[in-house]
Amino acid sequence: MQIFFGQIQDGLARLNDEESRHASRVLRKQVGDQIKVIDGKGSLYSCIITEIGKTEVLAQVGLEQAEFGHVPYELHIGIAPTKNIDRMEWLLEKATEMGVTSIRPFVSAHSERRHMREDRLQRILLSAAKQSMKGKIPHLHPIRSFSEVVHENFDGDRFLAHCKDSVRQEFARVVNPTRPIEILIGPEGDFDFQEIREAVGAGFEPVSLGDSRLRTETAGIVAVATVYNKHALIGD
Amino acid sequence: MQIFFGQIQDGLARLNDEESRHASRVLRKQVGDQIKVIDGKGSLYSCIITEIGKTEVLAQVGLEQAEFGHVPYELHIGIAPTKNIDRMEWLLEKATEMGVTSIRPFVSAHSERRHMREDRLQRILLSAAKQSMKGKIPHLHPIRSFSEVVHENFDGDRFLAHCKDSVRQEFARVVNPTRPIEILIGPEGDFDFQEIREAVGAGFEPVSLGDSRLRTETAGIVAVATVYNKHALIGD
Repeated sequence: MQIFFGQIQDGLARLNDEESRHASRVLRKQVGDQIKVIDGKGSLYSCIITEIGKTEVLAQVGLEQAEFGHVPYELHIGIAPTKNIDRMEWLLEKATEMGVTSIRPFVSAHSERRHMREDRLQRILLSAAKQSMKGKIPHLHPIRSFSEVVHENFDGDRFLAHCKDSVRQEFARVVNPTRPIEILIGPEGDFDFQEIREAVGAGFEPVSLGDSRLRTETAGIVAVATVYNKHALIGD
Repeated sequence: MQIFFGQIQDGLARLNDEESRHASRVLRKQVGDQIKVIDGKGSLYSCIITEIGKTEVLAQVGLEQAEFGHVPYELHIGIAPTKNIDRMEWLLEKATEMGVTSIRPFVSAHSERRHMREDRLQRILLSAAKQSMKGKIPHLHPIRSFSEVVHENFDGDRFLAHCKDSVRQEFARVVNPTRPIEILIGPEGDFDFQEIREAVGAGFEPVSLGDSRLRTETAGIVAVATVYNKHALIGD
C-alpha cells in the first residue's frame, strides 16, 4: 500500500510539493483514483483525487481509520546527536519502524555535534512512518541543552543510560511499557559525573543497556527494541 | 584503546597491509611501542612492535587475554541480503556491537539480491568487533540457498521469523539464550508458504518479532537485541 502525506482540512487532503510530484509524475495518478493519506497525527484517510497538478494534489476525504499503526506505548528518547549524522538518521528510521513517541536531541558535555538539520531528520521520520504503516509521525524536538531536557516536566518513568561503573539496573528489567517512558542516551564519550548527578537529582534512574560497548545510536536502538519487546510480551 | 587486527603465530603478531599503514603512517607507531592485537578468534594480545614497515608491522606477543569481549550466548542469524547493501552492512555492524556468533546469508524466493561482496562485509565485521572491543569476529558464511541453510545440521533452537497470519509465538518469549539459537529473517516480501513449510519440517519454530511492520534489517536487529536483552536479564 502506497501512503501519501498531506494536510487534512474541511474534508480535503492536500499533498505537498514533493508528495504531489510523486503522485502525479512517478505514479501517474489521475482524478478519481483512490489514495491513502496520513497527516502525521494518527489517522489513515482513504481519499479520492479531485484535482491533480505537478505541485499540488487535492483529494476528497472518505473513510478515516483512527490510530493507524498505533504505537501501544509511550517512549521518548533523549539523545546527543552523533558526529556522523547518518548514524542519527538511521536511529530515527529504525526507532520509527519499531515505534517511538518523540526524539529529544540534546547537547551534552561530551557532545560531538551541536547542530542538526531538522528538515532532513523530519523527512526521515515521515518516510519511515509511511514505510512502516504508521499514521503518527514521531515528534522531533529541536536540539536543546542537557539541562533543559532533564528539567522539563515529565509524567512517567525517566531513565539515564550511562556506562560508568556505578550501581545501575538493567533497563530491560525495570522498564514498564504501561507507563510513559523517557530514556536519555549519552554521546560516545558518555555523560560526565556532573550530568549524571544532575539527572539523578531530577528523578532519572540510572540504567544499563547491557555489557557490550555500544555506539550512541546502537544504544538508542537497544533502548527502543527493549520497550518494543517488553510490550510484545505484556500484550500477549 | 586502539586495537589492531593481525595474524598471531609463534609468539609474533603480523599486521596486514591496511592495519600496518594505519599503525605506521597515521598513528606513527615506533619500534618498542606497545600495541593491542586481535586475530579474530577471541583473544586480545598485548604486543611490542619489533619491526615497522609501510606495509608490514611485526610485534612480539606478550600477555594474552582470552575471551576478550566474549559474547555470552550463541546466536546465528540467517538473512536474505537486502537490495540496498548499506542496510545489510549496518545490520552486520550493529549485530556485532551487541553480539552475534555468525551470519548466514541466503537466497529465498522473494530475495532482492543474490550476490554480495564478502570482502566488504568482512571489513565491516572486523571494524565493528575492534570498535566494540571484541576479540572474536562473527563468522560470515557465503551466500547459500534457503534450503541449504534450513537443512544444515544445528544443535540448538531454530526459529523462523515471518509475518504471515498463522500461529506464531513471540520470539522474545520463547527464546532461551542458554542454548544455541538460530533465527532466519526473510526478505522484504517475506518467506513464501513453501519456505515456511520446508523450515517447519526441518524443525524451525515460527515466531513473531512484534506487531510493527519492520524492514528486513530492522527485523534482524530486533532479533539480536532480543537475545542481547534476554541474556542481560538472566545474567543479573
